[in-house]
Amino acid sequence: MSGEPKPRAADGKSAEDARYCNVALLGFGTVGSSVARILCERPNTHLRLTHVLNRGVARKKVDWIPASVQWTEDIEDILASDVDIVVEVMGGLQPAEEWIRRALVAGKSVVTANKQLIARCGPELTALAHSKRQQIEFGPSVAGGVPVISGVHEGLAGDELFKILGILNGTCNYILSQIETNGVPFSTALREAQKLGFAEADPTEDIEGLDARAKLAILARVGLHCDVKQERIATRSIAPVDSIDFEYARQLGCTIRQISWAELKSANGKEELLAAVQPALVDLSSPLARVEGSRNLVIATGKYGGETVFGGHGAGGHPTAVAVVSDILAIARSKQAAMNRNAPTPQKTPVVTADFTTKHYLRFMVKDRPGIIATLATLLSERGINIDSVLQKPGCPKSHLPFLITLEECRASLVEEALKRINSLDFLVQPCLHMPIL
Amino acid sequence: MSGEPKPRAADGKSAEDARYCNVALLGFGTVGSSVARILCERPNTHLRLTHVLNRGVARKKVDWIPASVQWTEDIEDILASDVDIVVEVMGGLQPAEEWIRRALVAGKSVVTANKQLIARCGPELTALAHSKRQQIEFGPSVAGGVPVISGVHEGLAGDELFKILGILNGTCNYILSQIETNGVPFSTALREAQKLGFAEADPTEDIEGLDARAKLAILARVGLHCDVKQERIATRSIAPVDSIDFEYARQLGCTIRQISWAELKSANGKEELLAAVQPALVDLSSPLARVEGSRNLVIATGKYGGETVFGGHGAGGHPTAVAVVSDILAIARSKQAAMNRNAPTPQKTPVVTADFTTKHYLRFMVKDRPGIIATLATLLSERGINIDSVLQKPGCPKSHLPFLITLEECRASLVEEALKRINSLDFLVQPCLHMPIL
Repeated sequence: MSGEPKPRAADGKSAEDARYCNVALLGFGTVGSSVARILCERPNTHLRLTHVLNRGVARKKVDWIPASVQWTEDIEDILASDVDIVVEVMGGLQPAEEWIRRALVAGKSVVTANKQLIARCGPELTALAHSKRQQIEFGPSVAGGVPVISGVHEGLAGDELFKILGILNGTCNYILSQIETNGVPFSTALREAQKLGFAEADPTEDIEGLDARAKLAILARVGLHCDVKQERIATRSIAPVDSIDFEYARQLGCTIRQISWAELKSANGKEELLAAVQPALVDLSSPLARVEGSRNLVIATGKYGGETVFGGHGAGGHPTAVAVVSDILAIARSKQAAMNRNAPTPQKTPVVTADFTTKHYLRFMVKDRPGIIATLATLLSERGINIDSVLQKPGCPKSHLPFLITLEECRASLVEEALKRINSLDFLVQPCLHMPIL
Repeated sequence: MSGEPKPRAADGKSAEDARYCNVALLGFGTVGSSVARILCERPNTHLRLTHVLNRGVARKKVDWIPASVQWTEDIEDILASDVDIVVEVMGGLQPAEEWIRRALVAGKSVVTANKQLIARCGPELTALAHSKRQQIEFGPSVAGGVPVISGVHEGLAGDELFKILGILNGTCNYILSQIETNGVPFSTALREAQKLGFAEADPTEDIEGLDARAKLAILARVGLHCDVKQERIATRSIAPVDSIDFEYARQLGCTIRQISWAELKSANGKEELLAAVQPALVDLSSPLARVEGSRNLVIATGKYGGETVFGGHGAGGHPTAVAVVSDILAIARSKQAAMNRNAPTPQKTPVVTADFTTKHYLRFMVKDRPGIIATLATLLSERGINIDSVLQKPGCPKSHLPFLITLEECRASLVEEALKRINSLDFLVQPCLHMPIL
């Protein structure tokens, strides 16, 4: 107001602006718009969306993005700006690679969801970022919302991992699940997946294992510290797998999944990396057998910590956007750490209760006599609690007769109140066991 | 050699010493000795173990720790030294709390596995660390080797989590699994667990849910940003759960686990935190139902990313030590980032093959005629491959007869070689489908 110059930080930002990390989005498709939504909805954050780049940007504009955001088709607008972090969610190799290189050279850090690009030239881009004192993060390039890159790189940094097993392609997992559940041929399951949007019109990348192969190459690099060219990883199609194979698999106590597998072994004194993406039989007791629909799962095995499992949504705008924003925050944190502004997260102090609303399990042990159920039913209904089922195991002694009442959804406190009265009844041999049904 | 002073970094270390992060261990029990082992065995690391503190330290000395490490009973030795990171794995509230405070005040960062201490005064200690420009990390305090603290704090930082469900106590999970599998009474399962070292002589903390409650309080803080006193979280014992309850649960399509549950809800315009540790029925299809023995599992649910699962070994020296070393590395990384020395990890470039050794699944589709099995068996045995089983689904047409041969463990390349010959045989209607059995 007084016309005095505002104090400026080293990078030329005003002191107020320096509190913010400016973010530019390259690409405003499914993932890009989800990232924008999270950035705009998020309270108490130092992140500020400043640019959105897309081809034909005029038709992309939406009203829920602040007017301060600049919409552009020109990368130069972003390279010349005071953007701190460039988020690449356009896909494709070019111009994505060139723009990422130029952003790093221009002193901006980068977050990318581009698995093909990272599988191909991740180490080069990381070295370029390092030489420019910037960061490049690529958590969203593998397994969408499942934080497996940070998990193996940071969470398990203390271990020496030697094996990674994963379900990394939701399309294949969906198709195989459908063959398994509905006994349909492969071709039918594929058509169904395409109709529902789970598979592309040209499903080659998914079905043949090329999509998962790029992700496995990235995981091998981050988790096993092996710089492996994706072309060196063998792949096999899931197309020959048919419903008869699930019948046979079941007889062997197994099911079939597309498995990405990388394992470091010492053979004849030198290390080798076993790696492949292929349909495989997995034991029904394995977490891999339980992965449903389009979800992803990774099992990392280490010398010290044994098996660690990461699972969740492997694709989709919102889950992938979570991975993008988590990486943006990681970069922002390390920029702040360098400035010693790594303040503790503000905490809420809400009311704490255990009054969950669920179905309930009430197991009684009684000395049998007529009218017990009627008595209990009356006491429960007086409090507006509805009985769902009554079960009694046959052949138990009358003096210690166990039986079960399940209740429809209601608040735990209502049940506890009823039980205070019920537990004083003389036919109970021990207090009622009460558990929620999740 | 020339007597010239070596160049010194700001903290008074020589330039060579400044490449290292010095680590002191408080406590040399199960976890402490595992941490020492990882630090001593780890190649290419900037971490250097310099001190080990324990009561009666003389009887603790082992020969696999370098002679340069100082063994001591006196915390002052460590506080006065150039240690960068103090690792507290002694347990108990005092003197752990006092020593951690003094370490932070002395300008050292801290890693602790002490759940009771962190549940009680984590925010205070974090604030103290921040005021001293140090870090305190407590990943190993929850779920041992499962990287769930870094997972929810960093990996899922981009989401807004509102629910955390977990199996956080291996002792309870082991006992409940035993009742389920062997149909034994609770008391027998507990005695068995005590005999095998899965439960303490006084199992109160575990059975009554107090151990899991401390961990849930920490998770609610880190994941849901709720500062909740552990005493406010309701607990219920698993002691009343008996084998009859597993029979009833099974009839409902469920099993029973000790569940730690925290969920943020808006009720009447204000936020409340539902939180409890209790035995609960969980659907058999839930990942919670599949947690075996002493393993841990956490499901975090967010507004954008949906459910994410973290699972692994929740206790034990080695897994917990992995969590400790991962936190040490995180601190070392952020110290390095501040100095811009965050170099890319060196990468191996091993030979890449897909020649896994497994059992194999070979599914044939043939035009039936006598002698097919004999022909295949001969071709396989010529290459030293042993047949494990032959299965044939009844009622299929002779012109398209599917059958299955499974093979004993052997290298994939052996099988591929045999299949080259086999796939040229005229009775095959389509090429053999070959998959590994994991």
